[in-house]
Amino acid sequence: MRCMSVITLTTDFGSQDWFVGTMKGVIARLASNVQVIDIAHEIAPGDIRGGAFALAAAAPYFPDGTIHVVVVDPGVGSERRAIALETKSAIFIGPDNGVLSWAVRDVPIKEAREISNSDWYLQPLSHTFHGRDVFSPVAARLAAGAAFSDVGESIRDFVRIPWPAVTQGENRLAGEVVHVDRFGNSITNLREDTLPPEAVARGAVRLRCVGIDVRLRTCYADAGPGEALAVASSSGLLELAVNGGSFAERHSVNEGVAVEAVW
Amino acid sequence: MRCMSVITLTTDFGSQDWFVGTMKGVIARLASNVQVIDIAHEIAPGDIRGGAFALAAAAPYFPDGTIHVVVVDPGVGSERRAIALETKSAIFIGPDNGVLSWAVRDVPIKEAREISNSDWYLQPLSHTFHGRDVFSPVAARLAAGAAFSDVGESIRDFVRIPWPAVTQGENRLAGEVVHVDRFGNSITNLREDTLPPEAVARGAVRLRCVGIDVRLRTCYADAGPGEALAVASSSGLLELAVNGGSFAERHSVNEGVAVEAVW
Amino acid sequence: MRCMSVITLTTDFGSQDWFVGTMKGVIARLASNVQVIDIAHEIAPGDIRGGAFALAAAAPYFPDGTIHVVVVDPGVGSERRAIALETKSAIFIGPDNGVLSWAVRDVPIKEAREISNSDWYLQPLSHTFHGRDVFSPVAARLAAGAAFSDVGESIRDFVRIPWPAVTQGENRLAGEVVHVDRFGNSITNLREDTLPPEAVARGAVRLRCVGIDVRLRTCYADAGPGEALAVASSSGLLELAVNGGSFAERHSVNEGVAVEAVW
Repeated sequence: MRCMSVITLTTDFGSQDWFVGTMKGVIARLASNVQVIDIAHEIAPGDIRGGAFALAAAAPYFPDGTIHVVVVDPGVGSERRAIALETKSAIFIGPDNGVLSWAVRDVPIKEAREISNSDWYLQPLSHTFHGRDVFSPVAARLAAGAAFSDVGESIRDFVRIPWPAVTQGENRLAGEVVHVDRFGNSITNLREDTLPPEAVARGAVRLRCVGIDVRLRTCYADAGPGEALAVASSSGLLELAVNGGSFAERHSVNEGVAVEAVW
Repeated sequence: MRCMSVITLTTDFGSQDWFVGTMKGVIARLASNVQVIDIAHEIAPGDIRGGAFALAAAAPYFPDGTIHVVVVDPGVGSERRAIALETKSAIFIGPDNGVLSWAVRDVPIKEAREISNSDWYLQPLSHTFHGRDVFSPVAARLAAGAAFSDVGESIRDFVRIPWPAVTQGENRLAGEVVHVDRFGNSITNLREDTLPPEAVARGAVRLRCVGIDVRLRTCYADAGPGEALAVASSSGLLELAVNGGSFAERHSVNEGVAVEAVW
Repeated sequence: MRCMSVITLTTDFGSQDWFVGTMKGVIARLASNVQVIDIAHEIAPGDIRGGAFALAAAAPYFPDGTIHVVVVDPGVGSERRAIALETKSAIFIGPDNGVLSWAVRDVPIKEAREISNSDWYLQPLSHTFHGRDVFSPVAARLAAGAAFSDVGESIRDFVRIPWPAVTQGENRLAGEVVHVDRFGNSITNLREDTLPPEAVARGAVRLRCVGIDVRLRTCYADAGPGEALAVASSSGLLELAVNGGSFAERHSVNEGVAVEAVW
């Protein structure tokens, strides 16, 4: 038996309306043997970086051949392009505003195409809901076996959002908070695997952020209840946390706040 | 291979409790080859019109044969009837309080039945959770192939909520806001396809609401950042919006607020 | 055709991040014929009792053979054990902090094992996201047919959270609020089936809580609009409610507040 295809959905549609369910209805009409998996729908309205980060964190854990659809699309209906990117292991579909770009940061692109084949759109095409009228039917047709080359014309490039820069100093790295999660953990752009292993091993790494200075530990419970700490988050990025509390709330930390690792 | 049946769920159960998951457990026990799709669960508690609107917006996009279950049911356990409606392309199941009625506003009903066949209920039947004990098992049995006529006795009529009236004047339509979505877009009961096409084409249509007067455009990005505008929403209804912001929040707009289109 | 296995997920991960979607990606990679059903993801961060209650309320309604995964895991990465419990009808997987214990309160355990077979973990194993790296792959392998005995070593006991005690007096029961649901219904630990049936039948049972004294009725609509009442909730536990309103909000009721039933 052929395995079911997987389509993932990442949007800023929230859960109060019928938008996500409608996309799934469109997919079910066009492809009968597909498993649709929600990555996140509570991306803040229009927060392209937030969508890009969620997709990049989740995508590596999906089966080969997964089709990832992202709809954080403040330019819907305008001249912004809709694009599809094929890598060795996945297809990424969304508006050409950078929201797909962090997921393919370190991955070679086999083919990039504009979604210009209007035969695949739902008709009449709305100007406000391409998640329903463009991205879902395209994903469903690909899941049902249509050729990637039929998506539309090949393109040479697409919008890439720069990943925030890390500055390397002597015994230090400087970066920033790139995501605050549900628990108030403040995830940075500093990678654990760029720290000197011997400094990590002897517990000598500290993180500094908004005047707070905390030690890098192995897990949340290594700090006392309510105590702040740093840990390697599940994506390999260092994060600031409070054991049993919210670092972001306690210290009013948002995305973009400067962080430094020293040892 | 026989396609999977689709059951959709629309409720006011929210996501903090186990209510929706329990309905899916009941369905999985009774029907093994069903795809359950969530339309919306954050309908405000008891907001029958909110549930009716979400269902009506999403249902047309689902495959033929879909079974739509709606549980916005403040009268659960009382004398209010549970009903099932069959149209050419779908079955609708829910309490007889009008929550199903907007989805079948323009669709002929083939058969309407009271869900009176208590053999299909879960036992013991609770008085507070018919989503679990009545609506889910009935939907699952129908998805598994049971006859619609076995749902219960045929009924002649059911509760219909009147769709808010539109008043036609000379070069104007008057209506109201019928839904505020996640983005603060304020969707009205005025249909784009009732406007004179030539007035739309020459950009002469304006919407007025709470003293604000905005132009009908094609898409959000046709307005400047932070600028208010009107567009045709994805359901064909005119909506008031702010490019990159929330019209409803900025102007304190709720459902029921008067709107006028003029040209 | 072999039925699809069912895996349920109950977590405190919320919906703003990619955590739940990533778990589903891991499961889809390892088991192709599984239906994943969300029970609840809005358990308050670290609220072990909240997770335990949701699981216990939902689990009885799932098909035999369902695998229930619970990740409310403030001790992730520490020495706390990960465990798997097998009963006659289900498998329960989660951290050994009591979160599984209410679901198996009245159910004999066939086998209890520590999840110590690290061959089943995702590598590299993070210290902050065992939902992805431990619990999901273990659930997927079991769903795909692996033997329960391969999970790890057999254990004799596991953490059990005591169910809040009910005190029986003459013509009275004393207990407490154990859960406040989405509607503000305040569910107690007092079971309807421990009340004298004749007192229920003649409408003589009253509930008292925070100075409020209400009558036990059959359904919400038995009270007037906005009137407080008590009913048997869908789990058989008595609850305090307001017809069309929130009892918990109106009377500032939280979990742990004392309740008394008298007749």
